[in-house]
Amino acid sequence: MRQLIEAITRTSNPSVVGLDPKPSLLPKILLRNAKSPQDVAQAYFSFNTAIIDAVYDIVPAVKPQIAMYESWGEAGINAYTRTNEYARSRGLYVLGDIKRGDIGSTAQAYASHLNGTPKIEGMEPVDVWHEDAVTVNPYLGIDGIEPFIEAAQECDKDIFVLAKTSNPSSADLQDLTIANTNLTLSEHVALLLEQWGETTRDSQYGYSRVGAVVGATHPVIGAKLRELMPHTFFLVPGYGAQGGTARDLRGLFDSNGMGALVNSSRGIIAAWQKAEDIPEFSSTEQALDFVAHYAREAALAMKNDITNALS
Amino acid sequence: MRQLIEAITRTSNPSVVGLDPKPSLLPKILLRNAKSPQDVAQAYFSFNTAIIDAVYDIVPAVKPQIAMYESWGEAGINAYTRTNEYARSRGLYVLGDIKRGDIGSTAQAYASHLNGTPKIEGMEPVDVWHEDAVTVNPYLGIDGIEPFIEAAQECDKDIFVLAKTSNPSSADLQDLTIANTNLTLSEHVALLLEQWGETTRDSQYGYSRVGAVVGATHPVIGAKLRELMPHTFFLVPGYGAQGGTARDLRGLFDSNGMGALVNSSRGIIAAWQKAEDIPEFSSTEQALDFVAHYAREAALAMKNDITNALS
Repeated sequence: MRQLIEAITRTSNPSVVGLDPKPSLLPKILLRNAKSPQDVAQAYFSFNTAIIDAVYDIVPAVKPQIAMYESWGEAGINAYTRTNEYARSRGLYVLGDIKRGDIGSTAQAYASHLNGTPKIEGMEPVDVWHEDAVTVNPYLGIDGIEPFIEAAQECDKDIFVLAKTSNPSSADLQDLTIANTNLTLSEHVALLLEQWGETTRDSQYGYSRVGAVVGATHPVIGAKLRELMPHTFFLVPGYGAQGGTARDLRGLFDSNGMGALVNSSRGIIAAWQKAEDIPEFSSTEQALDFVAHYAREAALAMKNDITNALS
Repeated sequence: MRQLIEAITRTSNPSVVGLDPKPSLLPKILLRNAKSPQDVAQAYFSFNTAIIDAVYDIVPAVKPQIAMYESWGEAGINAYTRTNEYARSRGLYVLGDIKRGDIGSTAQAYASHLNGTPKIEGMEPVDVWHEDAVTVNPYLGIDGIEPFIEAAQECDKDIFVLAKTSNPSSADLQDLTIANTNLTLSEHVALLLEQWGETTRDSQYGYSRVGAVVGATHPVIGAKLRELMPHTFFLVPGYGAQGGTARDLRGLFDSNGMGALVNSSRGIIAAWQKAEDIPEFSSTEQALDFVAHYAREAALAMKNDITNALS
């Protein structure tokens, strides 16, 4: 987590911009001539690069949600990987929100997201995904996590495992109490994450390479999880559009105001839709400038909002 | 599930071939000149089509594991979608083993696997994935499942939700007992699946569109899950290479010998590696013929093995 922590320190900003494009969030002019998944993918890429250019100096990281790209098939995946590559070229930490989870040998294949294409005689592994970290699902247990930890260790990268997600029905499984303990399932996962990450703790900052996803929408649960996981960095979805406020975030940070990275997606990338006067755009450049301007404003406002809540 | 059930009846074979290529499972000659992910992806596609041609008339379905393709990035995804398209053109039911899981709006984007690319004015949705069903992860609760059920209902397709996976560490979460019940987490998920699928039950066969993944490696747990889920079709991994035997499968089927689809991946696609005499292949065609021959033999042997155990 050192790379992420230092990027947060450099920008004095524990927030991450969720690059989750969908048709309804883009100015119509960007999709006016879209006739194929390739066209949409290209529009997503233009949209993303405009946002990245607008925020790269004030945020430490971006978090593209692969589902949004995957919904356009192969062409969308191309836009996803190019977005990641571009974000990295701008110095951003790229957290791929992929929520993969499978058993041993298959998890190893998914871990290629971090350590490159599988080994073949006569061919160098290729970093096709350009991610610094990915999110992972714990339902299959340590078999499904171990290959990611190994790949992260090998390549100086990180993972974030789902503990308590931000959605209402996260309660269906995650809030169940485990018999003969006082722990809910998400708290049980918390203890596993501390254990799974133990050998990968950073010597300077104390956080392991195994982070946790903990939603901003459950502040009481979140504060308890913070206590249970002192060496586990949090990725925090649910701020803004999903209802989490800056005040809800305090308990997710450690006593140094570190230990959590707060995501906002729509709140930043679709901030332009909340502008008082949205002009009829006469060119894609004009539309992208407008998107970029409001994204930067929103990113700065979010930084202030969180910083104030923490001080 | 009707389409799957009728394909099983037609072939008298409740098994599915897992199309999970990886470099070590392919004859070396297929990768001899591979210099890029594109080359590997093309080799995977050739490998898959040879196997599909060899088994399409004796099995009802194939189950490509997307992780194996995803490990080669965009090029791999291309091989995945083309494999699916080809399998369908041969009349096979294509079960995409994608194990996706995310919250509402994001799950909706993933559901594009079933119902095509998102709606955009002036553009028809495109079926970029060519899947008849996909696997889904339940950790996020019904929010993450509902969009898939809706898409399945809309397009006459199905989903299979992870209940009890075949790997040893599935116990880490799935075997935990829930307080104040006699249920483990996987049994709790079982009851949810019955409930989530209730409105989508097939009028003729009684099974809903919401299936469950239940590993062959836990026969006692599996039999209990069969009782808890009378309207839920099972996808059963873990037979063969992972240690599950045909005898272990009995309790997973219903009293009509229906209700479960048993997967084998390596046991079929890498059966050629168990041949007594493996020649030095002088051409890719010769290698693919060899692979195809042993895949068909293994698929027939598996069919007999399961049929005998059920009779």
